[in-house]
Amino acid sequence: MGWREPFAEGTGWLSMSDVQAYIGDGLQRFTDEIFEFLQIPSVSAKSDHDADTRRTAEWLHARLVDAGLEAEVIDTPGHPIVLGEWRGAGEGAPTVLVYGHYDVQPAEPVELWHSPPFSPEFREGRLYARGSADDKGQLYLHVKAAEAHLKAGDGLPVNLIILAEGEEEVGSPNLVPFLEENCDRLACDAIVISDSAMFAPGLPCLLFSLRGLAYCEIHVDGPSSDLHSGSYGGPVVNPAMALSQILASLFDDDGRIDIDGFYDDVLDWDDETRDSIRNLPFDEEEFATSIGTTLAGAEKAYSVNERLWTRPACDVNGILSGYTGEGAKTVLPANAMAKVSFRLVADQNPQRVFDLMRAHVAKVAPEGVTVRVEELHSGMPWRAQLSGKLKEAATTALIKAFGAAPVLAGEGGSIPIVCDFERVLGAPALLVGFSLPGANEHAPNEWFPQENIEKGIRALAYLYEELR
Amino acid sequence: MGWREPFAEGTGWLSMSDVQAYIGDGLQRFTDEIFEFLQIPSVSAKSDHDADTRRTAEWLHARLVDAGLEAEVIDTPGHPIVLGEWRGAGEGAPTVLVYGHYDVQPAEPVELWHSPPFSPEFREGRLYARGSADDKGQLYLHVKAAEAHLKAGDGLPVNLIILAEGEEEVGSPNLVPFLEENCDRLACDAIVISDSAMFAPGLPCLLFSLRGLAYCEIHVDGPSSDLHSGSYGGPVVNPAMALSQILASLFDDDGRIDIDGFYDDVLDWDDETRDSIRNLPFDEEEFATSIGTTLAGAEKAYSVNERLWTRPACDVNGILSGYTGEGAKTVLPANAMAKVSFRLVADQNPQRVFDLMRAHVAKVAPEGVTVRVEELHSGMPWRAQLSGKLKEAATTALIKAFGAAPVLAGEGGSIPIVCDFERVLGAPALLVGFSLPGANEHAPNEWFPQENIEKGIRALAYLYEELR
Repeated sequence: MGWREPFAEGTGWLSMSDVQAYIGDGLQRFTDEIFEFLQIPSVSAKSDHDADTRRTAEWLHARLVDAGLEAEVIDTPGHPIVLGEWRGAGEGAPTVLVYGHYDVQPAEPVELWHSPPFSPEFREGRLYARGSADDKGQLYLHVKAAEAHLKAGDGLPVNLIILAEGEEEVGSPNLVPFLEENCDRLACDAIVISDSAMFAPGLPCLLFSLRGLAYCEIHVDGPSSDLHSGSYGGPVVNPAMALSQILASLFDDDGRIDIDGFYDDVLDWDDETRDSIRNLPFDEEEFATSIGTTLAGAEKAYSVNERLWTRPACDVNGILSGYTGEGAKTVLPANAMAKVSFRLVADQNPQRVFDLMRAHVAKVAPEGVTVRVEELHSGMPWRAQLSGKLKEAATTALIKAFGAAPVLAGEGGSIPIVCDFERVLGAPALLVGFSLPGANEHAPNEWFPQENIEKGIRALAYLYEELR
Repeated sequence: MGWREPFAEGTGWLSMSDVQAYIGDGLQRFTDEIFEFLQIPSVSAKSDHDADTRRTAEWLHARLVDAGLEAEVIDTPGHPIVLGEWRGAGEGAPTVLVYGHYDVQPAEPVELWHSPPFSPEFREGRLYARGSADDKGQLYLHVKAAEAHLKAGDGLPVNLIILAEGEEEVGSPNLVPFLEENCDRLACDAIVISDSAMFAPGLPCLLFSLRGLAYCEIHVDGPSSDLHSGSYGGPVVNPAMALSQILASLFDDDGRIDIDGFYDDVLDWDDETRDSIRNLPFDEEEFATSIGTTLAGAEKAYSVNERLWTRPACDVNGILSGYTGEGAKTVLPANAMAKVSFRLVADQNPQRVFDLMRAHVAKVAPEGVTVRVEELHSGMPWRAQLSGKLKEAATTALIKAFGAAPVLAGEGGSIPIVCDFERVLGAPALLVGFSLPGANEHAPNEWFPQENIEKGIRALAYLYEELR
């Protein structure tokens, strides 16, 4: 497996503490446990997986107790929250709250996976499984880093709270109420979240921004039942065509989102930040090749990373209407549905975007159909408020584990609750992840870099020390 | 069941021949047989129903033999052709070729049927089942009309060929080669097809036109696999959005099809025909109410029936892309697919329409995706060439059976092989059907008017007499 090989020079190998030795010795067991964790299909969006999702929470609870934390499975109106706590560092020490989620995206389309989504497998240095990167695999690195301190060190250097929810992939409906009801218990000096990627292999990063989300479904209803497209085609407005017209109206010819007022709240970033983004070691062509397409979408005046991190986007996530099986069925479908999501940037607000979208759809919907927009999921965009100490501690820990200082980077995806955490708990969030770009989160063949199981646990163990 | 009730005055009750008496006596058995015929799911488009489709052909063959015809099941590279023949009227008598099809449309979405699609059921004067109207139910009326003459009369008044294919719903790929190879054996004086509707309850019609069809699939391919819409949304062109843009480009703001050259071959009908269409007893508002929508589609300068019969149409028959299940999956789909069909009118040609469509799609497809158009199904538009005798015979037969003279009407749907029959066999086609508008052909809850089982068989038995 290669676990025993020393890693790159200058990464702390020569000064290995008992804690770091424990990590080296325990890696095979830690890996076995991650496999077990990933085997339970905790798909929060699908109610037929509710029992699996609860089983995952209970499994995680037991591992937190094994690691030496006090832990609870706390019921919510949806999937439970798992809370681990260790207060042994005392009142004078800082308190760190780690947040992660044990739920995962649906695995569909399952037939495109090269190995079953819930049967973890190492191939070519990657751990393939749904949730390996997003976020079970990364959440578990914290559990093992804490265990190393608790079992091999003099306890943890900081007070630690590990909060894992089971509803991140469905919009965390019960998390904020939980934070608000428990804000005293959850009071902390920093929030640490590992649900993102490094900038490149060997190059860790700290995140300075996340995009927000406004995810909706558009339903177009036409005739009261499916009709024969020959007998009715022409005078009857086709709901699938009407839906296409509505979707097409969302963009102008320059790749900008063509909804009145949409860009009103979009912050223009300063030239310095834009330059620093452009100067990152990033090959747009290689990026395009890695995903098998060109990068012709959205606002071409911006570099690819600017488009991904600092500009909003609109995507169709799914469309369904009529007959989609084999052969030619001449049906005029009664209904059509699309899932549409907007990625938002500071200072946009998802509720305002839903309102603008609803007004836009009402304006462009053709005569002869009825259209409704259903809000499914939302999250605020986020910009980091990294204090000196938090940033320094993270930088040092990452240098020790990876032998490279982290760059500052944005992330196109959303972790909708980051803003809520900062607001309710009044502490800054540090987003430091160990996945890699192209890890297929939310797609078939999700993976996590095998070597970062070890390096991630080591980095987090160092981080807890540096935050003391 | 009401079979024994005399029907409306003046319909021939008082002059009932042995043939007509036989029909009255046999109705319960005929109905049982139709039920049996409809129970076999002969879905030609779906290869997992191939055995059912063959079983249907064999069942029909046996019934033709029972009725007194010589019959054969003739293999083709696809589904078999069933051929029944009776030549006893002699060389001096005319030969009538009846064409029908024993295959049916897929039943999906099955959950919208009020009774299972392949469990025929009478409800409120209607026979509900997939294929009841299109076309198994109507084809079988001819079998029973022939049987009545052969069992109760002095044989049939005309030589009769009954040709039933099993591939009408998938474009009849093997029919024309069969006609061409057997044109001597199939030589005839008239082609009779019952695969259409009466104009209204109690008001039969003869068809003067059918629209043609050009049915294709559009495939849009983007990235090599599904991506996380957060991490990639913006610079990556979304295939589902690209597909929507392509589909939306097919119409202009006035409801006309916006493809260069599309209307070049569309015949403008003369004012007399337009007036006669407008003067038919037809309530547009009632029609709209019956299907639960308004009639705001296509070219509003034309009446609804003009739009349906004399103007082309474009419909999206199905769309599929990305995640369409429960909840919010933030995926940027790798592919998108739509089924798109055009209804054509004289003198359009489906191959030219495919070519125009392909050129149009190439022109409007956005950068960043690859698009291909796959031809699935096509048929020429048709205009009737009713000779005096054929029209007169049909008129008389319909008056006898229904007590009302038929009107001339068009049909928005397609029977793609009508043109081929006329071309290859050199005889005019008579399209006389017994379904009703709104019978849900190609949709859930297809039905056929119960009373037209009897009236249809009687009308066809009269028709064979009148054609002598």
